[in-house]
Amino acid sequence: MGEDLEGLAELVREFAVLRDWEQFHTPRNLVLALVGEVGELAAEFQWNADDSLAQKLATPAFRESVGSELADVFSYLIRLADVLGMDLGEELRKKISLNNSRYPVDRSRGSAEKYTSYE
Amino acid sequence: MGEDLEGLAELVREFAVLRDWEQFHTPRNLVLALVGEVGELAAEFQWNADDSLAQKLATPAFRESVGSELADVFSYLIRLADVLGMDLGEELRKKISLNNSRYPVDRSRGSAEKYTSYE
Amino acid sequence: MGEDLEGLAELVREFAVLRDWEQFHTPRNLVLALVGEVGELAAEFQWNADDSLAQKLATPAFRESVGSELADVFSYLIRLADVLGMDLGEELRKKISLNNSRYPVDRSRGSAEKYTSYE
Amino acid sequence: MGEDLEGLAELVREFAVLRDWEQFHTPRNLVLALVGEVGELAAEFQWNADDSLAQKLATPAFRESVGSELADVFSYLIRLADVLGMDLGEELRKKISLNNSRYPVDRSRGSAEKYTSYE
Repeated sequence: MGEDLEGLAELVREFAVLRDWEQFHTPRNLVLALVGEVGELAAEFQWNADDSLAQKLATPAFRESVGSELADVFSYLIRLADVLGMDLGEELRKKISLNNSRYPVDRSRGSAEKYTSYE
Repeated sequence: MGEDLEGLAELVREFAVLRDWEQFHTPRNLVLALVGEVGELAAEFQWNADDSLAQKLATPAFRESVGSELADVFSYLIRLADVLGMDLGEELRKKISLNNSRYPVDRSRGSAEKYTSYE
Repeated sequence: MGEDLEGLAELVREFAVLRDWEQFHTPRNLVLALVGEVGELAAEFQWNADDSLAQKLATPAFRESVGSELADVFSYLIRLADVLGMDLGEELRKKISLNNSRYPVDRSRGSAEKYTSYE
Repeated sequence: MGEDLEGLAELVREFAVLRDWEQFHTPRNLVLALVGEVGELAAEFQWNADDSLAQKLATPAFRESVGSELADVFSYLIRLADVLGMDLGEELRKKISLNNSRYPVDRSRGSAEKYTSYE
């Protein structure tokens, strides 16, 4: 990906500022918008059973649709973090570090169980 | 944010590989997991009316919860793009470029209407 | 509402059977479709702050859009329950009964806290 | 299901009224709460590939979890419609009628395409 998160956040912010859209970008509005985009992403996958999906994922048209929905989700996620004054990269690193202790490699290997099921 | 997306994607991938979780990380599984995390993010905001939210957003405990949910959403979004062989940063740049033509500044300024309502 | 849930479930089932759509109505496909419709419902509310919403909710066009999205969500929820062999009404009654013990009236009155925060 | 929707809506309303929770049940709050519950429902299905799901769906513990999440989604959907003064059953019947004309049986049989793809 080779992209800087801060640079992308600036692009998204600038897009909004230029259009005077900051007034709409309250946290709750952005959460609802994010949910809307996640819904569109889910809809791309709704009628494709696991085993027929690989084939569809090889078609450029489907890849383009999915890529476009991923971008929409990412865009609102970045914007929400920006409006909240949070750093997505830092939050992710903190969470991975927490999950490293929640899911010790030898305990969690090959298992989809939640850490809360470990005693 | 100053973080490199590719570096974060590698961290998330490595976390999965070390635990032999690639078997669970099919596109549809990851979409469902993303939906689950977006649900947890939405739940953080569910009983906070717009006007009382600012106050709550100033408390460290709430910020930590929200940051943790943002990280979970981001983590599955990055992982999904990685599994699909897509570049989140590139997809976002393409989408911003498309939206720049869909939403001309003078036509869209101060308006929350969708571009499809422009004739 | 005065409507019988079983009658509605039959209508939704018949619609699918007539079109030979049962092949698409696996549990995971229906969950993803439900998510897509919830996303469309959320999108109706995304740019309407709490205080400007009342006004918009009085317009017939908005009410029609929202009603149509509620119907889509309900339709997939009913279909999912039907495919799983579950009875939505019975599940709801069981859950209300459980919540009645989780949220004693005198303890929960006027509070949006989750029962897990009660000791 | 044999259940009357209006009776269920009254149960859900009464639960809220008794606890003085109507103050929290604004449309946007309820949409966010609905999203949270749909996320929990999706999470039940996240690590179960289509072909291993049938087996899991036969276990009482999984059925109980899924039924409980269906109930939560249903509960907020009913409450949202009630607060908006909308009749879920009537909205569903209107939508089925619209979809009957959008998806003529002979054109849509065995196809998961959206009606917008029909010319």
